[in-house]
Amino acid sequence: MAPPFIRSTIRGMVGYTPGEQPGLGERVVKLNTNENPFGPSPRVLQAIREIEPEALRRYPNPTADEFREAAAKLFDVTPDNIIAGNGSDDILTIATRTFIGPGGRLAYPDPTYSLYPVLAKLDDAEAVPVPWEKNYALPVDALLATKAHAIYLANPNAPTGTFIPPATIGALAGKFSGLVLVDEAYVDFADDHCVALVKEHRNVVVSRSLSKAYALAGLRFGFAIAQKDVIDEMMKVKDSYNCDAISVAAATAAILDQEHARKSWEHVRAERSRMSDELNGMGWDVIPSQANFILVNVPGGHAREAYLGLKKQGILVRYFDKPGLNDKIRITIGTAQENNALLGGLKNLHVAEKAA
Amino acid sequence: MAPPFIRSTIRGMVGYTPGEQPGLGERVVKLNTNENPFGPSPRVLQAIREIEPEALRRYPNPTADEFREAAAKLFDVTPDNIIAGNGSDDILTIATRTFIGPGGRLAYPDPTYSLYPVLAKLDDAEAVPVPWEKNYALPVDALLATKAHAIYLANPNAPTGTFIPPATIGALAGKFSGLVLVDEAYVDFADDHCVALVKEHRNVVVSRSLSKAYALAGLRFGFAIAQKDVIDEMMKVKDSYNCDAISVAAATAAILDQEHARKSWEHVRAERSRMSDELNGMGWDVIPSQANFILVNVPGGHAREAYLGLKKQGILVRYFDKPGLNDKIRITIGTAQENNALLGGLKNLHVAEKAA
Repeated sequence: MAPPFIRSTIRGMVGYTPGEQPGLGERVVKLNTNENPFGPSPRVLQAIREIEPEALRRYPNPTADEFREAAAKLFDVTPDNIIAGNGSDDILTIATRTFIGPGGRLAYPDPTYSLYPVLAKLDDAEAVPVPWEKNYALPVDALLATKAHAIYLANPNAPTGTFIPPATIGALAGKFSGLVLVDEAYVDFADDHCVALVKEHRNVVVSRSLSKAYALAGLRFGFAIAQKDVIDEMMKVKDSYNCDAISVAAATAAILDQEHARKSWEHVRAERSRMSDELNGMGWDVIPSQANFILVNVPGGHAREAYLGLKKQGILVRYFDKPGLNDKIRITIGTAQENNALLGGLKNLHVAEKAA
Repeated sequence: MAPPFIRSTIRGMVGYTPGEQPGLGERVVKLNTNENPFGPSPRVLQAIREIEPEALRRYPNPTADEFREAAAKLFDVTPDNIIAGNGSDDILTIATRTFIGPGGRLAYPDPTYSLYPVLAKLDDAEAVPVPWEKNYALPVDALLATKAHAIYLANPNAPTGTFIPPATIGALAGKFSGLVLVDEAYVDFADDHCVALVKEHRNVVVSRSLSKAYALAGLRFGFAIAQKDVIDEMMKVKDSYNCDAISVAAATAAILDQEHARKSWEHVRAERSRMSDELNGMGWDVIPSQANFILVNVPGGHAREAYLGLKKQGILVRYFDKPGLNDKIRITIGTAQENNALLGGLKNLHVAEKAA
């Protein structure tokens, strides 16, 4: 039993469960946690190798200004429109504490990133999941009806990969008195994004991650873009030195090498299209995706069996044991070779045979 | 004015103010934020240079197990007695959310690390400062009388440098039903520490930082030691991947090179003793310190003038504009050369002349 001096909210809750992470040495085809199939830019490695001992000895710049300046140029905003975080999870934590807080209400279309209700719970706030409309259209009226302090919207959504057009999100923000956070962790694999909404809407925060788009999941770096007076408030909430000197240098190098990153985005888009066609052809219905993964309806709904059957073959995909998801598996788009291994693995499955 | 969708607690508060951080190129004698005067171990730099792109591409181990195993051996505990954090500020945030929470109460002897009331405020918890007894003795009865959910105790204390014997803290924990967090950010410069209390007291958490003891303020790495069932609860609260792959490798290398670190601790102790003697001899009364800084009573109470006068000479020390502190300056123990520059700078001051 948990010790009596633990806050009751924490005692009663289950923490967020990250995807399986096999050891670096293990030989698996790892298509379960949406990493970028290619490595980071060589300039990132160079920036890391060039770190001076003095940059480690001293406290870092508290607001990661080197990164903010580079990102401001990339997005045509000013540095004071940007806050950096220790991964976009840190940005989401900061946002939850800035805009919602204890007794507040967080709404989001459901299913989505399973961290959102955990963040609400940690703050003694209420999580209000609102079912997606048909074909994962945005449930605008139902979201507005929640009268939440904030709406979190992963776009592209996880784990569906579906995308809501920025104009629709702008219209939602225009009608909403709370904060709309657009979680764009996967947006570099999509056709459009919501950064332009920030200029028009004071109540829009766009969050980004370097984990997928820049192949830097191991680095923990994310950021958010919003109007200056919104960023100023988020700055009060973040840990004083939430980004370390190495990750700031590495993240800056990463976004300055757009060419390297763009190549991986183009690969992912091409392979996503190929994989979707192949799977649809096999009778595994793929939900149209703009992310670096696809959510696939397993024939006969035997998703758990497919997940386990692939795992036996050394292929990891993600299975969510939840209503609305437990008949599907989520497959990260990997290298062509990894994707072919996945296709081969699916053909070996008993469930695949039954469907064929 | 802050936007209306900002949580009222945040709108109404002022964030934590970190110490001044001049640019890396600026030529100043920097004795204001308690960094270690020597650099990190060469093994840390080597670990950083050896980071594989694959370790960046993939998500890190969520619980920094490589570090936990090394730290467990060093402290003669098991890895499940340890949680790693993005700096010990992250540990303090996690603790506040695990043990106190909204509507809870956090007590601490005052003055101390000025982050504590900020952490309470961020969680809509009540901060209860309890004045130190004479000569910075622990106000045990007054702390118990607060009936707080947790007591935070910086030991050595910042910014006084004073130290409470572990037996006194053990006695406090034995009488207290809440959590006692011993913030040992500066303990490697002291004569004793409280890790042994963890085995006996389920309600004791000891937090550590690599910022000062291992000259890694720029890396952001801290950790806490407690009984397993306490660590388990803190794990639910932390961000899923709060420590990045590079910092885990670097922090592990740092604690494995005890010899390098110990040399800097011995230097600091020797210089602290020399500086205290010199200053006391000049009529600048030094509070006995076990940390890597000293809090000094400025003759005539002209602390602000001393701070500004030193700054004019390119010497940064810390001045706190708060009752009980605004007649003192805090001086970090630097290299012998830096310390001599400080002594020279003090002698140049008008206030020093008046006192002489």
